Amino acid sequence: MKFRNFKTVPKMIFGRGSFDQLDDVLADERTELDDFVVFLVDEVHKDKPLGQRIPATGKDMVIWLDVTDEPKTTYVDALTVEVQEYAAKQVNGKNPVSVVGIGGGSALDLGKAVALMLTNEGGSASYQGWDLIKNPAVHHVGIPTISGTGAEASRTTVLTGPDKKLGMNSDYTVYDQIIMDPDLIQGVPKDQWFYTGMDCYIHNIEALNGTYINEFARAFGEKSLDLCNEVFLQDHPDSDEKLMMASYMGGQSIAYSQVGACHALSYGLSYVMGYHHGIGNCIAFDVLDDFYPEGVKVFREMMAKHNITLPKGITKDLSEEDMEKMIRTASGLAPLWENVYGPSWQEKVTPELLRNLYSKM
Amino acid sequence: MKFRNFKTVPKMIFGRGSFDQLDDVLADERTELDDFVVFLVDEVHKDKPLGQRIPATGKDMVIWLDVTDEPKTTYVDALTVEVQEYAAKQVNGKNPVSVVGIGGGSALDLGKAVALMLTNEGGSASYQGWDLIKNPAVHHVGIPTISGTGAEASRTTVLTGPDKKLGMNSDYTVYDQIIMDPDLIQGVPKDQWFYTGMDCYIHNIEALNGTYINEFARAFGEKSLDLCNEVFLQDHPDSDEKLMMASYMGGQSIAYSQVGACHALSYGLSYVMGYHHGIGNCIAFDVLDDFYPEGVKVFREMMAKHNITLPKGITKDLSEEDMEKMIRTASGLAPLWENVYGPSWQEKVTPELLRNLYSKM
Repeated sequence: MKFRNFKTVPKMIFGRGSFDQLDDVLADERTELDDFVVFLVDEVHKDKPLGQRIPATGKDMVIWLDVTDEPKTTYVDALTVEVQEYAAKQVNGKNPVSVVGIGGGSALDLGKAVALMLTNEGGSASYQGWDLIKNPAVHHVGIPTISGTGAEASRTTVLTGPDKKLGMNSDYTVYDQIIMDPDLIQGVPKDQWFYTGMDCYIHNIEALNGTYINEFARAFGEKSLDLCNEVFLQDHPDSDEKLMMASYMGGQSIAYSQVGACHALSYGLSYVMGYHHGIGNCIAFDVLDDFYPEGVKVFREMMAKHNITLPKGITKDLSEEDMEKMIRTASGLAPLWENVYGPSWQEKVTPELLRNLYSKM
Repeated sequence: MKFRNFKTVPKMIFGRGSFDQLDDVLADERTELDDFVVFLVDEVHKDKPLGQRIPATGKDMVIWLDVTDEPKTTYVDALTVEVQEYAAKQVNGKNPVSVVGIGGGSALDLGKAVALMLTNEGGSASYQGWDLIKNPAVHHVGIPTISGTGAEASRTTVLTGPDKKLGMNSDYTVYDQIIMDPDLIQGVPKDQWFYTGMDCYIHNIEALNGTYINEFARAFGEKSLDLCNEVFLQDHPDSDEKLMMASYMGGQSIAYSQVGACHALSYGLSYVMGYHHGIGNCIAFDVLDDFYPEGVKVFREMMAKHNITLPKGITKDLSEEDMEKMIRTASGLAPLWENVYGPSWQEKVTPELLRNLYSKM
């Protein structure tokens, strides 16, 4: 048996107000006069205080990201071309010295993806998969402004491509530096805060109940889950800090574990019906009593406590064609189902099972 | 306020039997025919199965470490010269492509120290302190065979020099790769297993009760403490795995926290009386009821459960000169005492207090 050689984010700053240290971090990368940095920032911050605090200078480039839809390979490629055209005009085509992603899971994934595409030729769709990336990325920095996805810690960047929703998984994908400033996640709209936090809660439940888990993943997953409970059940006064750590540790846990039934179903909801990952997970998890009885029970307590109401009956008007596409998408995620059922998962994961689950949503 | 930019081990392999992947890890570093690797291995493994499994090949060098005493700067310098003389004869003086430290805290610290000294001129004593190292180290790999010190995760290498016991603290000190193979920590003699594990338990207690702590350090410290409880109170069947994770997470916790009164006193015991770090900590912790009442209570339960008896009356025949030297050593550790008492620690940490504590040991 071979164990994964887990590449982790090598440098981290944690603390309230630590966003202000981004300037110092970038100063270490700037060596020549025409060196420039690309900031990819969720456009929600454009006219907010954070938008004014981006330490752009000289020939730096700030791009406001449209994250209405989850990241598509076409958007990644367009952003990469935008940077390259700018660089061609301004600095004889040289690459930026750093790419900084600022925002939620989508913005963080776009930061990673553009950093990779600036040094790897061809469109991003050709790199969806495992370890297809050939060259190290441009130095990249991730700064979460909403917590739960674990994108700040992970070795993937989830992209919707022409024929699949799948990440560019590689060691080069991992951020070189993250800045975890709990100040930044204050003021996130309640629903979004909850759905994104539940991404973390749910992947811990899936990982801890899965067949792939080992004690490395268990230690991180259990602590992440404890922190989620402090945040969502106990309203701990340090909830911003704790949620930020829960997200990071949940991401670390995935090194030697895997998500499960909920993420498989949720991928189908996203790919066919366009649901965002966070709410898609919640809708799917709410029908998984048979898979994760204790986890679903506590999840409903959390929903009740925070007055969250999920949409219901979302699949009842779905065409048969779309239903089948959704079932195909969900059942195609072999590692997730193997994590649930072990190697003989194919006997268990029948179209009937998936159709039945989707029909309950 | 500035927060530390925490450099962490960027690559980790965890799993039973993962030691066998060391060969693959080193293969990535070997590019030229005369490239060589230096293995620094605790000599306890010399005639044991592990000694036969060292993947040395070609011009590689295996050095069996004498860790009777804790690492001294003179020993680090001698090892460095040994490597350099070998390299001069064998490969025109070029540096090894990797230094692999295999063993407990002492061997892991020696691995880090030699990797640093091969690229930084002058003796190691001149680098005892914070961020004095100028050049990146040779690639270095750490493989613990006893768990608790957190040396596999930390940015220091604790050395006894001509005038102080102090680490070479720097980002370059951190291992480039660690391999955590729980198989390797089976069969450690019971006392040593306990004392080294208590190093982890105690620094968690000190960190969690200290003034320096933040939520990053708390999350890691709390989980590490939970794991210690599973190992030392509950005899969990996966204790090897859990202790290995406790040690790693305890090391991570120190990023934004600090040890406290016990480590300060223990440093004095080591420096003046030659006690090893693990047992020194236990002797010191056992008199710290006033500082850590709950922690000391549980510690005594752990001792009772594992039939551990600490030496008593160890300072009663100590000369006045040595007692004063020990008090000076302990009181000189400003950050540790500031972590205990806050900025006004100097009013509290009197020679009488320290003498009184040492007299109880």
